[in-house]
Amino acid sequence: MPTILGQNQYGKAENRVVRITRDGATHHIKDLNVSVALSGDMDEVHYSGSNAHVLPTDTVKNTVFAFAKKYGIESAEQFGIHLARHFVTSQEPIHRARVRIEEYSWERTGNTAGGAAEPGHSFVRKGQETRTSEIGYDGERWRIVSGLTGLTVLNSTDSEFWGYVKDDYTTLEEAYDRILATDVSARWRHHWTSDETPMPDWERSYEQAREHLLQAFAGTYSLSLQQTLFQMGTRVIEHGDEIAEIRLSLPNNHHFLVDLTPFGLDNDHEVYAAADRPYGLIEATVLRDGAESLIPAEPAEL
Amino acid sequence: MPTILGQNQYGKAENRVVRITRDGATHHIKDLNVSVALSGDMDEVHYSGSNAHVLPTDTVKNTVFAFAKKYGIESAEQFGIHLARHFVTSQEPIHRARVRIEEYSWERTGNTAGGAAEPGHSFVRKGQETRTSEIGYDGERWRIVSGLTGLTVLNSTDSEFWGYVKDDYTTLEEAYDRILATDVSARWRHHWTSDETPMPDWERSYEQAREHLLQAFAGTYSLSLQQTLFQMGTRVIEHGDEIAEIRLSLPNNHHFLVDLTPFGLDNDHEVYAAADRPYGLIEATVLRDGAESLIPAEPAEL
Amino acid sequence: MPTILGQNQYGKAENRVVRITRDGATHHIKDLNVSVALSGDMDEVHYSGSNAHVLPTDTVKNTVFAFAKKYGIESAEQFGIHLARHFVTSQEPIHRARVRIEEYSWERTGNTAGGAAEPGHSFVRKGQETRTSEIGYDGERWRIVSGLTGLTVLNSTDSEFWGYVKDDYTTLEEAYDRILATDVSARWRHHWTSDETPMPDWERSYEQAREHLLQAFAGTYSLSLQQTLFQMGTRVIEHGDEIAEIRLSLPNNHHFLVDLTPFGLDNDHEVYAAADRPYGLIEATVLRDGAESLIPAEPAEL
Amino acid sequence: MPTILGQNQYGKAENRVVRITRDGATHHIKDLNVSVALSGDMDEVHYSGSNAHVLPTDTVKNTVFAFAKKYGIESAEQFGIHLARHFVTSQEPIHRARVRIEEYSWERTGNTAGGAAEPGHSFVRKGQETRTSEIGYDGERWRIVSGLTGLTVLNSTDSEFWGYVKDDYTTLEEAYDRILATDVSARWRHHWTSDETPMPDWERSYEQAREHLLQAFAGTYSLSLQQTLFQMGTRVIEHGDEIAEIRLSLPNNHHFLVDLTPFGLDNDHEVYAAADRPYGLIEATVLRDGAESLIPAEPAEL
Repeated sequence: MPTILGQNQYGKAENRVVRITRDGATHHIKDLNVSVALSGDMDEVHYSGSNAHVLPTDTVKNTVFAFAKKYGIESAEQFGIHLARHFVTSQEPIHRARVRIEEYSWERTGNTAGGAAEPGHSFVRKGQETRTSEIGYDGERWRIVSGLTGLTVLNSTDSEFWGYVKDDYTTLEEAYDRILATDVSARWRHHWTSDETPMPDWERSYEQAREHLLQAFAGTYSLSLQQTLFQMGTRVIEHGDEIAEIRLSLPNNHHFLVDLTPFGLDNDHEVYAAADRPYGLIEATVLRDGAESLIPAEPAEL
Repeated sequence: MPTILGQNQYGKAENRVVRITRDGATHHIKDLNVSVALSGDMDEVHYSGSNAHVLPTDTVKNTVFAFAKKYGIESAEQFGIHLARHFVTSQEPIHRARVRIEEYSWERTGNTAGGAAEPGHSFVRKGQETRTSEIGYDGERWRIVSGLTGLTVLNSTDSEFWGYVKDDYTTLEEAYDRILATDVSARWRHHWTSDETPMPDWERSYEQAREHLLQAFAGTYSLSLQQTLFQMGTRVIEHGDEIAEIRLSLPNNHHFLVDLTPFGLDNDHEVYAAADRPYGLIEATVLRDGAESLIPAEPAEL
Repeated sequence: MPTILGQNQYGKAENRVVRITRDGATHHIKDLNVSVALSGDMDEVHYSGSNAHVLPTDTVKNTVFAFAKKYGIESAEQFGIHLARHFVTSQEPIHRARVRIEEYSWERTGNTAGGAAEPGHSFVRKGQETRTSEIGYDGERWRIVSGLTGLTVLNSTDSEFWGYVKDDYTTLEEAYDRILATDVSARWRHHWTSDETPMPDWERSYEQAREHLLQAFAGTYSLSLQQTLFQMGTRVIEHGDEIAEIRLSLPNNHHFLVDLTPFGLDNDHEVYAAADRPYGLIEATVLRDGAESLIPAEPAEL
Repeated sequence: MPTILGQNQYGKAENRVVRITRDGATHHIKDLNVSVALSGDMDEVHYSGSNAHVLPTDTVKNTVFAFAKKYGIESAEQFGIHLARHFVTSQEPIHRARVRIEEYSWERTGNTAGGAAEPGHSFVRKGQETRTSEIGYDGERWRIVSGLTGLTVLNSTDSEFWGYVKDDYTTLEEAYDRILATDVSARWRHHWTSDETPMPDWERSYEQAREHLLQAFAGTYSLSLQQTLFQMGTRVIEHGDEIAEIRLSLPNNHHFLVDLTPFGLDNDHEVYAAADRPYGLIEATVLRDGAESLIPAEPAEL
């Protein structure tokens, strides 16, 4: 055949596992969407259809559910580490595993109305960001990227945009007071790579990174979304010793000040139309000085 | 022509209006998606294409934005009332207006990390339920239906399902301890219909109804999702004098206890697979005793 | 309790059933998404949680799959009729059934390249409209509404819009040559209601109605989308003796002629920006003269 | 600051441009969703907020629409080449441009019913796959990746799966006759990199690659989805001299044979339940022998 096989991987995507832990009348919940991709010595299944090296994706699914019982789910990162280690060490043809996890947060239903509610086992989905984890393992080294997606934020002032390049196609007017809004997607890589060093506290690390993203967005007087992005990344790294680099992808959710003069009304930064498309899209990696850049830009540069 | 025109309406859908109100350094935000449908004396535009009775949908859009300035947005219901009244009273051919509004909630970015944040103008989208309002007006009588959609809740115990009908196609085993989970969609109609009586406090009414839905879901020991639904509706009406009836639509988001015995593991209500489709779907209206049923079931019964 | 139960229904939604029929080496495929809603004597399950009248939704699901074997799937309408009849006649507490079906079309993979393909069992999903069927039965009378959704069409000329009402909020300029585009959603009710009269040929009826919708959209010189809508409905009824009425819902997918004069370019109906939101929304029922209007407007008028 | 800037890019995403070309009464349509990402000398805007090197994303949008007039849209690839060249050569700080385009296909409304339709300007959206193009340019070398996404295909037989690895978590039974179904996502890189060599015929190249993907899927007796994938990639390369490599991503859309024995029915490959999640996911690059692998796997390997 005139062709050869390049990079390849396979696995089971979107295993939706919910783990309940009962502590007397108080229950705890972890709600994950787990995807596993495996690669290794897989030429034959592509060339001839021989499955002799192939662990079925159905088995991958079974393993996810069995491990939720066997190990519990302390954190998504820890759970992914159990899974990735298992596939790479138990199956000789598998040389590399990547586990991607989305986590949905729940909070307890409060008992504010003083009624009959027993909030120990009743939850309402938090609904904000989806927490993400990516766990890579090749039998020697770990690569752990934590993150979040869908955290929607808005500053109603303290954002300007002016002093930009003007060419033949530029019609935009400079803005000295605008809404700045975005849906934060962030992925940060941890220094931790080896079983011989202690792991970070994944839950605490996540809560802190999330909080610093929000604080930096709120606290930056913005001259461009790029500047805000860099401040957000810097603040996460400054306050997170365990973090080597962070990749941010920030759509500029445009809010246009509506011209109300045809109707005899002024509009002093009061009424905005929220637009869907097109949107600006600002993406960058912020690195701790001296760190390697290992989070791939996605989509990768052509 | 062998055909005639039946029920018809037209308007502009999904006007995305964001209203900022500045109270010194503290800003307030209202974020709405407004759809307007108008009907009346519209035969000619259908039969001959004459637009002599047609207010353009572009004008409807302009009016939404202009009214956000002119009247502000105290509540979605109040805003919809301004709009519906305007179209019906200012345009002779328009006999009826219906305004549907989705509202997205934002909360202030906290300043928990003690940093430079100025939370007075920084917001994070709450992300849970979408609040809904439907405002109908025919020039005389108002019909106001408030509601919410997408409020996802889960009880990890205190739910059973047994004693049901068994026929030739029944294989389900009875359950004495299961997860009960749903995405609450609720729409409740207010007694208020006339300009001559005082309006409810729409914001307070909403917050209370939402809280009672959560409390009733949490506090009901459930023998069927129908029973839980009825308790939710009843509690909203009991605690809301302004509410005449409520329509609930509750998908049963199935969580299946995974059989781990092939792997030598037991599963004592710990590991569940969350399913997408198919799902049970339970829908009912709960009425205050003596009230008329005026919220249409949707889809309507054939 | 101060509340009573109003209209209610329950069932299993979105049963995804694929039926293959082998005719030697030539296979046939039907791909349906079936939702069933049942209602009747269901007070007790709401009031007390007693399931003594409740056929589990899991049984509903089993029945859908079993009937796909037992009766085959000649058409979605015929399949829904089998299901609705079964639930109403076999379960005393069930007085009414409604089956809603989405159908996805597949076409055979052609063998245009002359290769080794055996197109008898290879299919590519057609991807255009989703066909819909709604089957209602109360033990005596049938109500059958066929339809489609998501059929996206565009005329690049022969559309005007002028002569409309102008008020204080009108800024729109009249248009004498514009793009007219929409995503057709249509639902048409058949005359057929009784087992004692012969059923229409559901497959043929669908193909004809779909074709006439397309032809009327293409062939109408449009002065308003309402006029086009009425022509589409009329043509379906004129050519379909079996059809009593049709309900159309047509979003006006706005395409704005881009102003290129700042760049020294004219734009003679060449370059358009396709907008997402807001959009006009035109909805109406077209009735055969003398027919009753029985397709509920959805959302129903408040 | 303890941080530095890594890879970064910015631009305007999802510019929805529709281009009509009139050839007398016969019109032609191109319908694109164009995203542009630019990178280069952009440190200052991140570090200090100075926009002195920043061409606004609003200008990027204007350029997309202006070029649709100036150059027309012969093909998505050709259009992206015009755009990428413009940004890199006209703006000194911009060193690299990447244009990603989604294209939606339309077909003419036929005139099969012999009515008044004038199909020269009436179109129905084809609805199957979305065509994709990615155009990368650094001022010297081009990288062009064409592709498609969302092409859903199904073989109702000629698929087996057996002889796989069995471990402690394996419960799957071997299959000797199963449905094989997937949503094809494919991206293929062209040899063409330099303005000094003639470009391929992008439209013809696309049509051929699409057809060969379909033929190979239909014509392969499959022992694993990996084998089918490799055949699909090989056939595209064998029949496309202009193509260097192809990356395929194929979800295994599981169709489970429903067990009908509890209902006294057999199921000889007739009734299947189509599942949503989890799904197998098979991804691989197929390379022309001797070609470099330059299409990045996405998500990239950790």
